[in-house]
Amino acid sequence: MASMAAVLSKTPFLSQPLTKSSSPNSDLPFAAVSFPSKSLRRRGGGGGVGSVRAGLIAPDGGKLVELIVEEPKRREKKHEAAELPRVELTAIDLQWMHVLSEGWASPLGGFMRESEFLQTLHFNSLRLDDGSVVNMSVPIVLAIDDEQKALIGDSKRVALVGSDGNPVAILTDIEIYKHPKEERIARTWGTTAPGLPYVQEAITNAGNWLIGGDLEVLEPVKYNDGLDRFRLSPAELRKELEKRNADAVFAFQLRNPVHNGHALLMTDTRRRLLEMGYKNPILLLHPLGGFTKADDVPLDWRMKQHEKVLEDGVLDPETTVVSIFPSPMHYAGPTEVQWHAKARINAGANFYIVGRDPAGMGHPVEKRDLYDADHGKKVLSMAPGLERLNILPFKVAAYDKTQGKMAFFDPSRPQDFLFISGTKMRTLAKNNENPPDGFMCPGGWKVLVDYYESLTPAGNGRLQEVVPV
Amino acid sequence: MASMAAVLSKTPFLSQPLTKSSSPNSDLPFAAVSFPSKSLRRRGGGGGVGSVRAGLIAPDGGKLVELIVEEPKRREKKHEAAELPRVELTAIDLQWMHVLSEGWASPLGGFMRESEFLQTLHFNSLRLDDGSVVNMSVPIVLAIDDEQKALIGDSKRVALVGSDGNPVAILTDIEIYKHPKEERIARTWGTTAPGLPYVQEAITNAGNWLIGGDLEVLEPVKYNDGLDRFRLSPAELRKELEKRNADAVFAFQLRNPVHNGHALLMTDTRRRLLEMGYKNPILLLHPLGGFTKADDVPLDWRMKQHEKVLEDGVLDPETTVVSIFPSPMHYAGPTEVQWHAKARINAGANFYIVGRDPAGMGHPVEKRDLYDADHGKKVLSMAPGLERLNILPFKVAAYDKTQGKMAFFDPSRPQDFLFISGTKMRTLAKNNENPPDGFMCPGGWKVLVDYYESLTPAGNGRLQEVVPV
Repeated sequence: MASMAAVLSKTPFLSQPLTKSSSPNSDLPFAAVSFPSKSLRRRGGGGGVGSVRAGLIAPDGGKLVELIVEEPKRREKKHEAAELPRVELTAIDLQWMHVLSEGWASPLGGFMRESEFLQTLHFNSLRLDDGSVVNMSVPIVLAIDDEQKALIGDSKRVALVGSDGNPVAILTDIEIYKHPKEERIARTWGTTAPGLPYVQEAITNAGNWLIGGDLEVLEPVKYNDGLDRFRLSPAELRKELEKRNADAVFAFQLRNPVHNGHALLMTDTRRRLLEMGYKNPILLLHPLGGFTKADDVPLDWRMKQHEKVLEDGVLDPETTVVSIFPSPMHYAGPTEVQWHAKARINAGANFYIVGRDPAGMGHPVEKRDLYDADHGKKVLSMAPGLERLNILPFKVAAYDKTQGKMAFFDPSRPQDFLFISGTKMRTLAKNNENPPDGFMCPGGWKVLVDYYESLTPAGNGRLQEVVPV
Repeated sequence: MASMAAVLSKTPFLSQPLTKSSSPNSDLPFAAVSFPSKSLRRRGGGGGVGSVRAGLIAPDGGKLVELIVEEPKRREKKHEAAELPRVELTAIDLQWMHVLSEGWASPLGGFMRESEFLQTLHFNSLRLDDGSVVNMSVPIVLAIDDEQKALIGDSKRVALVGSDGNPVAILTDIEIYKHPKEERIARTWGTTAPGLPYVQEAITNAGNWLIGGDLEVLEPVKYNDGLDRFRLSPAELRKELEKRNADAVFAFQLRNPVHNGHALLMTDTRRRLLEMGYKNPILLLHPLGGFTKADDVPLDWRMKQHEKVLEDGVLDPETTVVSIFPSPMHYAGPTEVQWHAKARINAGANFYIVGRDPAGMGHPVEKRDLYDADHGKKVLSMAPGLERLNILPFKVAAYDKTQGKMAFFDPSRPQDFLFISGTKMRTLAKNNENPPDGFMCPGGWKVLVDYYESLTPAGNGRLQEVVPV
């Protein structure tokens, strides 16, 4: 953690750099807080006179599952890995390995075996040995082809290797089972129409087998893209949130630039939590960092934009933690929003903001949205294993022409409001036009304009991406 | 119940005709029996000296939901229905109304509202107000089109009418919501391939809206096809099972003729239950009576065949109840087998026999089975809300040439066994050929041959059905 602290002290997003806690309490398990009625458990002793320790929501399964081999054993494990049959990981496989390694999918201990895969497909949840249920709505699986399966033979362990051929993990007590692609797609997305971004990228050409097992990751996953300092693990986020004495943590999942409507919503949520009696609600502004579709704004540009939003004071750095959520994006709407919420429980969030059509997209073939805009929040509110999480439905914000700023939509005077869709926003930025004053802070808007300027229109009239995603 | 008793006394399948019980205990709730460890609860008092009352498994939600208007109120409700906007039911809608009216889907109180529909699609289960979970894997929904929706207008109630235009039920406190056909199909079947029998029959051309609400059925559903006497409701089955002092009830769902391999399995199951300490295990032989695909043997012929099997002594009438399960068939494999099992809990069964590829069929487009043959029993064993049910995996029976009879397959001498598939069986019967002696009792086989003889080959070489299904 000492090196983490050094890295984080350079992070402008975190107002209070994470330092190694000397409190004897720091390794105690977090106390559970039950919601929505507030029952904050305070811990005495050990934390100094007058110190109040808020209990963060417990991870799914009661314990954060971390799958990174500890330093003293890494050398030995690397030697072991070198002797094992090898499975090469794609970029998305590596993102899932990252997700698993840090416990975002706790209590999952590795790529899914068939019993977990089937429960995810059919029930969006897993039943644990003690009979309790945790949410798990998207399959976290690893595909291999016939040739790889033959190479593995009777081995009970395999090495997972990166694109450079170096082992990054060991999968033990493996189980190989059929990859029912059509069924996986139909049950996860509710459609098998061609053109689903994740399906095209990660399933259509994947192998016909899935390999599950217990994961041991040899080193913490790093991308060396300048953004690793923002990739806090659930354990690191919990430490940070605890250090800030958060007594409520509200997570905001996003994969788009932040405009003032979002900011209004987040500020308003904090206000409501204070009204409910919480003393120190902290916002976890948590952009998704894994695979996204080609026309989404790439992570590095989004991070620059979020940074400006904090610099410009639209959000208060004192009560905001910005960090990257390493998961790839499925665009699976009501199924995926459960995953987005569940993973944030593991990071300590007990409030989750959900908007219109979360994790949705246009139908890839038909002229309509793929999902009903209200299904996401309805499904989320009924999802097994998420009963502990307090769902905060997104209020609709729009540009109020009478005030010249973003405000919550007032249905009694609809003529005063201007809705600026994501498509409209991107079109304005692409054309280097300005949105109405008060839509987004100028610094944030400039980042967007710069991003689209960095894309050179190609001969075919489509924007060509020259920036690595 | 008096008229039921009169009808049932003519039923050869039920060795002990159901008579109105004069025991003061007969209306007491059934005690729960926990499984698999046997804990038979005995009730004293009221039932006469030495009488032992076995407790049947409790219905889902604790109480059997019966939705048939009681006699004194029928006239009044019929008058009310005559004044309401009308929704005409298809044959399959009527089968579902039948299912709902008798409580097979307890605690469901009518066609699903959106929250139930979404929980079924995503979680295969419903969370009740008390936080408990019941299984519910197939949507029981009623589709209406734009025109019907417009006619309903703001009414909070509608009359459901049969094909003759007469009201058969009232749906109250209605909710109309979008019918996301593609998503429903994908999540229920795990495919959207064209050619799924239920989809073609009941979804593709159905309306774009679903209407849910609380159901009040005006009269018990009758089909007047000579088979109504076999259509025992869950309450009637519970009375019959109780009268027989069943201390274990094992259900066998089927939609095919019974051969001696099935009979062996059922007999063997009873033997195993006796070994476990049960004194009086009763078999619920429970053929599905609703919609089936065109190439399945029709219900009336199957019932004749089942009757012969009992007459020929292959199954013991003393320990067997044959009754018709009124549900339509989805052919939705692992999703549907949960429904088949859950409905039998409501009828009092605490053991469920599950075979290879339950509720499965060939993929409608690709040359393979639609579902992995083992997924059904795996999914069933993990399904939320079915924890109370004891799953009995089907042992594989085949024709043992050395014994000249059906026997459990012995993998140490595979060469001695002959597997006779359903297709092979049908082909033999169609061609008026005999299967090996001991495959099926002669009386039962003759019914099959007679059925296929009743079909006249049409000019196009396909068998034409001349018998109403």
